[in-house]
Amino acid sequence: MAAQSALREKPIGVFDSGIGGLTVVRALRELLPNESIFYLGDTARVPYGGKSAPTVERYSLEITAMLLAEDCKTVVVACNTASALALPQLEATTPVPITGVIRPGAQAAVGATRNGHIGVIGTRATIKSGAYERALLALDPAVRISARACPLFVPLIEEGWLQGEITDQIVRQYLAPLVADGVDTLVLGCTHYPLLREAIGQFLGDTVRLVDSAQNCATAVAHLLEKKDLRADPGSSGQLAVALTDPPDAFLDVALKALQLEIGEVQLREVIHLTR
Amino acid sequence: MAAQSALREKPIGVFDSGIGGLTVVRALRELLPNESIFYLGDTARVPYGGKSAPTVERYSLEITAMLLAEDCKTVVVACNTASALALPQLEATTPVPITGVIRPGAQAAVGATRNGHIGVIGTRATIKSGAYERALLALDPAVRISARACPLFVPLIEEGWLQGEITDQIVRQYLAPLVADGVDTLVLGCTHYPLLREAIGQFLGDTVRLVDSAQNCATAVAHLLEKKDLRADPGSSGQLAVALTDPPDAFLDVALKALQLEIGEVQLREVIHLTR
Repeated sequence: MAAQSALREKPIGVFDSGIGGLTVVRALRELLPNESIFYLGDTARVPYGGKSAPTVERYSLEITAMLLAEDCKTVVVACNTASALALPQLEATTPVPITGVIRPGAQAAVGATRNGHIGVIGTRATIKSGAYERALLALDPAVRISARACPLFVPLIEEGWLQGEITDQIVRQYLAPLVADGVDTLVLGCTHYPLLREAIGQFLGDTVRLVDSAQNCATAVAHLLEKKDLRADPGSSGQLAVALTDPPDAFLDVALKALQLEIGEVQLREVIHLTR
Repeated sequence: MAAQSALREKPIGVFDSGIGGLTVVRALRELLPNESIFYLGDTARVPYGGKSAPTVERYSLEITAMLLAEDCKTVVVACNTASALALPQLEATTPVPITGVIRPGAQAAVGATRNGHIGVIGTRATIKSGAYERALLALDPAVRISARACPLFVPLIEEGWLQGEITDQIVRQYLAPLVADGVDTLVLGCTHYPLLREAIGQFLGDTVRLVDSAQNCATAVAHLLEKKDLRADPGSSGQLAVALTDPPDAFLDVALKALQLEIGEVQLREVIHLTR
């Protein structure tokens, strides 16, 4: 069908509250090089992680509406906070399939743990939502979970302090209680956190496995596209476009360099306010 | 005049991107106990400090419009970022007198320095704007200025880590270059920063004077009310109302406790989006 063939060549829409979701873009580019991606970061209202559920839900609906206006064939919620608080409403109101980061991360964690004790770290809003607990227990009701909000990690990453003494101390402050609890698997439940992977790995050593929600989300997107017959033609050259709701600052460069991503000019988009 | 007398009893409107502006409220309560205050924190879009000038300007105009809808007799911009980026436009479009935090802080700094070398710390947006440099040089063209953005201070304060080893190290990381430069006066150019006063004071010792923009702003408001015949009756009992654009989180309690402020129930207000 010509219609389906045209649909396949449309971009994957990816959004995050800011720049952190580019870790998901990086994973998608590696796994699905033929797919075009339109990334939208809501930098005019970043971060979502400390805000209330109704506000995060409203912002997520608005940003998703903007991705639909860009003619995306599917929407990836590359933000743990938005996935934790807005996924049901997004799924109920959006005409294209939606993928969040939480279910894929939970599946990978349940597969990785040997002692059945999983740690989860994320923003205040993600941890408070209990979304990972629900997803993990739905997969394995016997699993034990230790969760902790790490609100300094995002600003630390955005400052570009990915390593060093201060970073090591903050990592220790947040993660030592989880290690003492006995977790053998740790879900990096915020798309920024893979940028701290090295510092976190150094502190945890080899005994705790890290689950990167970005990588697992990309795998889930690949499965979805396959199932819905939405994969781009293998001969297509996937393009990456990045748009933000506020002009980029220095952190965009930090992230692009750390993720080895090449983008063209960053586009600006004005937030569409949905009437309630 | 009855009209002027009624006007005097109206509240002072104070706004900030979030909770930090309560340091200004604290200073106003001490200095002007008979004045009622309506505080509005834009927690649905906090922080402003990393965002662009046009976005901060638009948010500031919207929040000021909301304070006018609350019938405030004057507006205090208890946010350095908004003062740095939006004050001229606010002054041009608002029918009541406006006070920012930057000019009062600059005046106090010029009065405090002995060697003529002033340090300024603030958010990325405040420092990038150069607003303190302009205000300081307008008062004394011979002054030397060393400025530095300290983007981790706000999240550190909001985490409640006002003291301790991590806090001391971050303070040292940001302030050591200013000390090496030879400043003898340091402007705390963000309304959150007075909450770190102890940790900052410990690092700097007695050789560097701290200028608290909150206190100097309150003094400027007192002068303005006097000049405009807007002082509340000495018999009035000043009330404090606090409204936010997103429900409060744990940091509100941290701030209220640290500032010894008592408030009633926190009100919620929906952002009014101005059409452009």
